[in-house]
Amino acid sequence: MIDARARQPRPVGAPSVADIRAGFRALMAEMIVPDGIRTSAATLGPRPALCVEPVEGERAGTLLYFHGGAYVFGSPETALSLTGNLVARTGFRAYSLEYRLAPEHPFPAAIEDTVGAYRALLDSGADPSSIAFAGDSAGGGLTVTTCLAARDAGLPMPAAIVAFSPGLDATRTGESMETKAGIDPYFTRESLAHTGRMYRGGQDPHHPLLSPAVLADLAGFPPMLLQAGTNEVLLDDSTRMAARARAAGVDVVLDITADVPHVFQSFAGVLDEADEALDRAALFLTQRVRA
Amino acid sequence: MIDARARQPRPVGAPSVADIRAGFRALMAEMIVPDGIRTSAATLGPRPALCVEPVEGERAGTLLYFHGGAYVFGSPETALSLTGNLVARTGFRAYSLEYRLAPEHPFPAAIEDTVGAYRALLDSGADPSSIAFAGDSAGGGLTVTTCLAARDAGLPMPAAIVAFSPGLDATRTGESMETKAGIDPYFTRESLAHTGRMYRGGQDPHHPLLSPAVLADLAGFPPMLLQAGTNEVLLDDSTRMAARARAAGVDVVLDITADVPHVFQSFAGVLDEADEALDRAALFLTQRVRA
Repeated sequence: MIDARARQPRPVGAPSVADIRAGFRALMAEMIVPDGIRTSAATLGPRPALCVEPVEGERAGTLLYFHGGAYVFGSPETALSLTGNLVARTGFRAYSLEYRLAPEHPFPAAIEDTVGAYRALLDSGADPSSIAFAGDSAGGGLTVTTCLAARDAGLPMPAAIVAFSPGLDATRTGESMETKAGIDPYFTRESLAHTGRMYRGGQDPHHPLLSPAVLADLAGFPPMLLQAGTNEVLLDDSTRMAARARAAGVDVVLDITADVPHVFQSFAGVLDEADEALDRAALFLTQRVRA
Repeated sequence: MIDARARQPRPVGAPSVADIRAGFRALMAEMIVPDGIRTSAATLGPRPALCVEPVEGERAGTLLYFHGGAYVFGSPETALSLTGNLVARTGFRAYSLEYRLAPEHPFPAAIEDTVGAYRALLDSGADPSSIAFAGDSAGGGLTVTTCLAARDAGLPMPAAIVAFSPGLDATRTGESMETKAGIDPYFTRESLAHTGRMYRGGQDPHHPLLSPAVLADLAGFPPMLLQAGTNEVLLDDSTRMAARARAAGVDVVLDITADVPHVFQSFAGVLDEADEALDRAALFLTQRVRA
């Protein structure tokens, strides 16, 4: 069912940016936002953010959430099912950042915004051990690249990273780019290249902030949880990042669910695998984030 | 502290089997057995087993536990900290099997016993979806090889596998055999070869039941959780098994903790990483085992 829906017919030819954004908004509007959370508008450094809090049972700790959408589409609202499910399960407050998107604002604008938001949290007095980064797809990539950029800026590392189907390799050299072609209901090499060009804005993909799974030095990174499905061309972005993290002496849980697509956690409330994966992510976060 | 204790001086030369068994018994007697469990003697098929149950809050579900000890030493008693911690955290009953040991009973005696115990559980009316295999070190290897042998015998798969630092490759070709030499406080290539020869009893290590991480067909396997530390020569037994499982379309969580040794979960109650890893294992089991 989920696979068939993901494969619904699409217009021929490269769609416009406006069409991509509207289509993703419509797709994600079908996802179930859990009960027991409330949202409010916030500002984090230079950018707006959606504050997502539990109605009851709040615990000390902050998630800085980065939504998916290939750095071109998506918003805190399109990721609200994911963010809300993490908040409902952990009791932590989340700030879901409205970082700038390509093609209007290509690389490294998004990372400037996420680091700016993290710096604002720290400047407000939050202890880094009380903050975790979480995100899906491109936002999963931002959990890693924000740590890299923060480290380079002399900022402390957060307590943990949780990434759902992160995009971590703009060189697209993972074996799963070939072995999962046709199995992945969402992405083809061509569709990824289309939005990838917008984000890179002419930058060589061989850059640690564009392809951390193949190029980044992960020394000093916080514990990370990477979740992905076997039905996705980006699977080996996660497997290679995990291998790199292990080699750098970083705690890493590589959590792979069979026969599910990219960011299957969005189907929480419908697909048992999604709820179970979110429960594992919540446990990982509560083990790492300190009051 | 833990690393230093593991490195305590040992007699020069290959120790006798009796000395190895006594030394391991003394080492594991230091581990903390949790409150809230009770033990009793049981028989499972042809072999004795230690039944470990929660004093309160029992939940439907059975763990079949296989202790570590290189197939040469160890017993249900030496693994009681591990088994007891899983029982206390899940509420499931466990049977920790006293399988036959080498050199008196070389390969495949242990696997005959574990499959016999599983068959006895099924014959008693237990549903396979209510049973999980768990084990540490050599016993972690048995969680996998028991599934292989059970499948070949036409038995259904259990609901899940949890393996702590499993030994899964008698060919000893993992990169970590070299990269972690000297970092691993317990094992050297030589010490593993000493007990390995006893277990193999002349068998070629290139056999799926001796080296499943490099040779086994994992089609139809249940979801598996593999936990290991980065300070162990057997690390790549787990990483290669996980890659093989992903390729076979099996749910697999590869859960690596940095800077801890082989079966660090034994230090529950002393080492936070041990308790946290056991909590993740318990969640995984409760998600998979059905009443």
